[in-house]
Amino acid sequence: MRIQIINPNTCQGMTDKIAQSAQSVALPTSDILARSPAHGPESIESAFDEAIAGAAVLDVIADGEQQGVDAHIIACFGDPSIDAAREIAHAPVIGIAGAAFQLASLVAHRFGVVTTMSRTLPAAHHLLDRYGYAHLCSGVRATDIPVLDLEHVEHSIYQQLLDECRAAIEQDGAEAIVLGCAGMSDLANELSLELQVPVIDGVAAAVKLAESLHQLKLTTSKSGQYAAPLSKAFIGRYAHLSR
Amino acid sequence: MRIQIINPNTCQGMTDKIAQSAQSVALPTSDILARSPAHGPESIESAFDEAIAGAAVLDVIADGEQQGVDAHIIACFGDPSIDAAREIAHAPVIGIAGAAFQLASLVAHRFGVVTTMSRTLPAAHHLLDRYGYAHLCSGVRATDIPVLDLEHVEHSIYQQLLDECRAAIEQDGAEAIVLGCAGMSDLANELSLELQVPVIDGVAAAVKLAESLHQLKLTTSKSGQYAAPLSKAFIGRYAHLSR
Amino acid sequence: MRIQIINPNTCQGMTDKIAQSAQSVALPTSDILARSPAHGPESIESAFDEAIAGAAVLDVIADGEQQGVDAHIIACFGDPSIDAAREIAHAPVIGIAGAAFQLASLVAHRFGVVTTMSRTLPAAHHLLDRYGYAHLCSGVRATDIPVLDLEHVEHSIYQQLLDECRAAIEQDGAEAIVLGCAGMSDLANELSLELQVPVIDGVAAAVKLAESLHQLKLTTSKSGQYAAPLSKAFIGRYAHLSR
Amino acid sequence: MRIQIINPNTCQGMTDKIAQSAQSVALPTSDILARSPAHGPESIESAFDEAIAGAAVLDVIADGEQQGVDAHIIACFGDPSIDAAREIAHAPVIGIAGAAFQLASLVAHRFGVVTTMSRTLPAAHHLLDRYGYAHLCSGVRATDIPVLDLEHVEHSIYQQLLDECRAAIEQDGAEAIVLGCAGMSDLANELSLELQVPVIDGVAAAVKLAESLHQLKLTTSKSGQYAAPLSKAFIGRYAHLSR
Amino acid sequence: MRIQIINPNTCQGMTDKIAQSAQSVALPTSDILARSPAHGPESIESAFDEAIAGAAVLDVIADGEQQGVDAHIIACFGDPSIDAAREIAHAPVIGIAGAAFQLASLVAHRFGVVTTMSRTLPAAHHLLDRYGYAHLCSGVRATDIPVLDLEHVEHSIYQQLLDECRAAIEQDGAEAIVLGCAGMSDLANELSLELQVPVIDGVAAAVKLAESLHQLKLTTSKSGQYAAPLSKAFIGRYAHLSR
Amino acid sequence: MRIQIINPNTCQGMTDKIAQSAQSVALPTSDILARSPAHGPESIESAFDEAIAGAAVLDVIADGEQQGVDAHIIACFGDPSIDAAREIAHAPVIGIAGAAFQLASLVAHRFGVVTTMSRTLPAAHHLLDRYGYAHLCSGVRATDIPVLDLEHVEHSIYQQLLDECRAAIEQDGAEAIVLGCAGMSDLANELSLELQVPVIDGVAAAVKLAESLHQLKLTTSKSGQYAAPLSKAFIGRYAHLSR
Repeated sequence: MRIQIINPNTCQGMTDKIAQSAQSVALPTSDILARSPAHGPESIESAFDEAIAGAAVLDVIADGEQQGVDAHIIACFGDPSIDAAREIAHAPVIGIAGAAFQLASLVAHRFGVVTTMSRTLPAAHHLLDRYGYAHLCSGVRATDIPVLDLEHVEHSIYQQLLDECRAAIEQDGAEAIVLGCAGMSDLANELSLELQVPVIDGVAAAVKLAESLHQLKLTTSKSGQYAAPLSKAFIGRYAHLSR
Repeated sequence: MRIQIINPNTCQGMTDKIAQSAQSVALPTSDILARSPAHGPESIESAFDEAIAGAAVLDVIADGEQQGVDAHIIACFGDPSIDAAREIAHAPVIGIAGAAFQLASLVAHRFGVVTTMSRTLPAAHHLLDRYGYAHLCSGVRATDIPVLDLEHVEHSIYQQLLDECRAAIEQDGAEAIVLGCAGMSDLANELSLELQVPVIDGVAAAVKLAESLHQLKLTTSKSGQYAAPLSKAFIGRYAHLSR
Repeated sequence: MRIQIINPNTCQGMTDKIAQSAQSVALPTSDILARSPAHGPESIESAFDEAIAGAAVLDVIADGEQQGVDAHIIACFGDPSIDAAREIAHAPVIGIAGAAFQLASLVAHRFGVVTTMSRTLPAAHHLLDRYGYAHLCSGVRATDIPVLDLEHVEHSIYQQLLDECRAAIEQDGAEAIVLGCAGMSDLANELSLELQVPVIDGVAAAVKLAESLHQLKLTTSKSGQYAAPLSKAFIGRYAHLSR
Repeated sequence: MRIQIINPNTCQGMTDKIAQSAQSVALPTSDILARSPAHGPESIESAFDEAIAGAAVLDVIADGEQQGVDAHIIACFGDPSIDAAREIAHAPVIGIAGAAFQLASLVAHRFGVVTTMSRTLPAAHHLLDRYGYAHLCSGVRATDIPVLDLEHVEHSIYQQLLDECRAAIEQDGAEAIVLGCAGMSDLANELSLELQVPVIDGVAAAVKLAESLHQLKLTTSKSGQYAAPLSKAFIGRYAHLSR
Repeated sequence: MRIQIINPNTCQGMTDKIAQSAQSVALPTSDILARSPAHGPESIESAFDEAIAGAAVLDVIADGEQQGVDAHIIACFGDPSIDAAREIAHAPVIGIAGAAFQLASLVAHRFGVVTTMSRTLPAAHHLLDRYGYAHLCSGVRATDIPVLDLEHVEHSIYQQLLDECRAAIEQDGAEAIVLGCAGMSDLANELSLELQVPVIDGVAAAVKLAESLHQLKLTTSKSGQYAAPLSKAFIGRYAHLSR
Repeated sequence: MRIQIINPNTCQGMTDKIAQSAQSVALPTSDILARSPAHGPESIESAFDEAIAGAAVLDVIADGEQQGVDAHIIACFGDPSIDAAREIAHAPVIGIAGAAFQLASLVAHRFGVVTTMSRTLPAAHHLLDRYGYAHLCSGVRATDIPVLDLEHVEHSIYQQLLDECRAAIEQDGAEAIVLGCAGMSDLANELSLELQVPVIDGVAAAVKLAESLHQLKLTTSKSGQYAAPLSKAFIGRYAHLSR
């Protein structure tokens, strides 16, 4: 199967890292196509960044559909534009936050989320509410590590992340840790070894769920909310979307 | 004061109608600047349309800020990009759905929402949840009138809308009606006269709230969630957003 | 328009202060009629005080209706008897707590409430639930300043209030402050200047909402919950209510 | 023990009926003192009626406390002024709605409420929320029987009530019925025989809970929310409340 | 009446203590039959223990039914198998956690729960949710006292419990204390005297509720969820359950 | 990997069907070990049946752990004893209801559940609440098909099931269907073809999630709620559980 994994920001280093993380857990029969949009911000750290990246992601989804990929993964912890993407996709569309919450809840009663900037906390809480996992989350903690510092993680950054995970376990009662940024995907194993609790990376989780859905022949329902949008005129920089 | 009211879709007829509705309720001291984005869909009837329009709206917000407007109104019932807009605005940003819910709750114990297409129902429910008004809403009803049919409302369309309002009152127990589309803003008075319950148009409600905040010198808090986004590089069609 | 603003307690100094605060933000075309009941407690600091004041307020509402006022404001942070008042009023009835929550939510993602006595905390939480704003509130903090000490605010009292607002911002993450007592209405501007976040006084907020509803010709729905009560006999000190 | 059971309305026939129902289930060692306030409406069918009756009830509570009763029951399905009453009482104060919900939940997974006028439905829903029983309630149904028609129940009234109970069971899935008015207290046994499900009368339930608390020596906590109100001046018709 | 009170664990000392506590508050006309299952764990401190004890309890319920007892009490704070028990019982089945929550809510606005092992906290929270009392609970605190240490309470154990109750009152705002283990039932009076707030023991509360239901002739509804299970074959160690 | 899939009832025909369904979707590298307990009911259709089966399942879990299986699946839609099972397992334990909800939410905005007997509806609603999926479920519908009739599905039974699925889609707005019984697992493909929406069988979903967790090396967290139970004595038919 072919899995298109989209890094919604435009930082190539991040896309490469995501590709690697996805590839490392994929089945031999899964081709990972990692891409980022041709437009938008180099990192997503505010609702503003997310709104812009969210529009840009949709071109990549549309393109992947035309190429006939078997699944899409949106690899930013805000799961930007996931409803819009599902409307224009037949293949399943999976967000890494939702994917991580799902697998975490299978191996722990309550999980903690450790993320990047403090100002993304409301977005994380919004996703927990949206997906129905708020009552299973022991807390969301910000490290205030800027997203792009995760491209090449130095020791001090790793230590900061580790400390916050420890606080989640010891102070909040987390029984597992969900990593709140695609840029942390290469650290899950090392953190898990040190912390002795499951550490869930959304990129890996999403790859497994994409393969699961494909093997079960489950695709996005085209009845109701995720039916194709009505055709209409778009103008300006979105004129190519006119149908 | 100057109020920038943004029609997030690119249908000029809708923008004109919104301008007129806003003007008709504004104080003499309020200048209404009605605008629509230079980019995007001619109507918003899906999460896909809203994601695209949501990105396009932000340019208009930024532009209004530079011109020093005193308030922004996002005149689409989905209140698209409202958090992102508040991040880049000092002037208050008001969505018409939120505005309508607020005023409706002051004159009725439970209000009904009557909107356009069935597939916008989840968006309406999402807003009721987000703003905390779900328990005060007797139900959301779709008329399945396409948004652009509201540009020039024919008798049969009006009748359809009236029937759905009646059903909201008689079957759901609505004590007031919130109109679920900016394109219905010119029908509030007539409907209210026929139905004998308050009918709230979000465009008018938002104008009054914008004036209220301005008179109280209340502007968007720049502490926390609505602080300005961090400066960063944007590429492609969003390169102009690099800060 | 004529706005009847009711101080539900019987402390004249408080009524005067409320009148002044209301007048200072009212449009030139708005007449402010500030009144307090002829019966009841000199301050409201318990459910007991509120139950008594709540009955007394209704006479003032009924009187205002007969005089044909265009709006009623109940200027005590518990919004006492607001449902009962709406049943006997055609003009809109606005509570200062609900009004403050509404405007605060337009300029901040999460607001804090700073109020008087600790034992009024459950009442504040009850109102947040009732109006649907609990998820938008970062916390309610009591200063344990007795209500009547707010009649003439000394420096130490002001400082206490300021400190609690600071704690709301720094410890709870409040992005705006709602003042939890009509007696604080003259302090909003000064606090906002010092704290650099929006500070919302419910008296001012309610005046603006009263004007907004009046300009939109919105009055209390007489269909359903707020329909006039059935006529019946009352005895004793309430015999005058027999209809 | 002495149980003061208060009919919050001023209809003597209702008070007599409540006395009888209470007496019929009380232990031989329990003295039932049935009373109604000297002031207020002859029936409670709106928030307005309830606000007035709620103030009047408090005099009866205060009086009972001075006489040293061992428990107070507020015998109106809205449990009016229950928080205020608890503030001024050492003896426990029990509302008949809360009492009925408690016992119903012990014998059925979901119970239905059958009440009087449609406009009391919001009050019933508010109580279910307040006490935390909403998820255990299969629905609240109004018979639109005026409260005073319950003083002497004619056959047609009984039939109407029976039909609504049947609908609650068959259409809503109620497994037990809670009677939503003190005036129905004498009908519980007959209805239960015909319907073959438990029928819970709040008056009887409250008497049993009052006896239970007394036997366990449990009285109202005077720490926190139910501590005695601060002393202060009251004027006018409430001057006697000055402390 | 005859009340069968079941200690779901197999520790005879605990059964004796529960019998004594129940007897000490029962009416003279109530016979207390205290029993424990012939199978299962000597204490219940995990979901595993509870699942095993929960199956074992059902034999005791079935046996009590055959002997015609008038009520069953399940005297473990997890209220294990309460729904299953109600399915096979005509007499009411009362859990001590639910019973304690009910009575606590009648004498306090918010109560705290003080329990044994930390790992039973999720079970306590689950019960608060299930019964609808979460919003009335100021917090659940674990003492980490092993259940069997409560058989004979030493001074240091008592002190530990007292300290945790104090913390619940002073730090969490508890206005009453619910004891979270049947093994604490003999300590309620002493704790209440020292703490000066109501202390509710679930065993005592359940006895009073059992008597209340019996006096009101209320038995488990056999319509809906608690109807008798369908007859079917059971094998192995449950072959005796074949009907 | 070795996946132990447990049919909690003792009907061998059902176990065989579950084995077949699981095998048909498993990876070639996955060994399916289908088992049922040596004790308990031949079908699970009440809380009573579930409590008994829930205890019996734990022996099978313990046995699988000793044999070193890599994952356990509990293949009854009530996910009986899932918390208890996780306490005694290092391998992940997956319930088919939770698994089905997870995958359904990835391909549809709202899914419907179609199950067997009406009296299992509360159990289904409880699971939706517990896992946080209630707001994503358009409704649960019972077919009133007895569980054992699913062993060999006749045409009329299939038709009944199909009709109920259609009602879920057309009347409730379901966009996908979750099958509410392991006994329906062989019908998912055929139903999906006819209904043209995704139909999710929990057995298949659970197999895929078990493989996913195994490939990511995620096992049950032994920190907190799912830590191993304390050792203690068990007596009678559970003496073998003494540790």
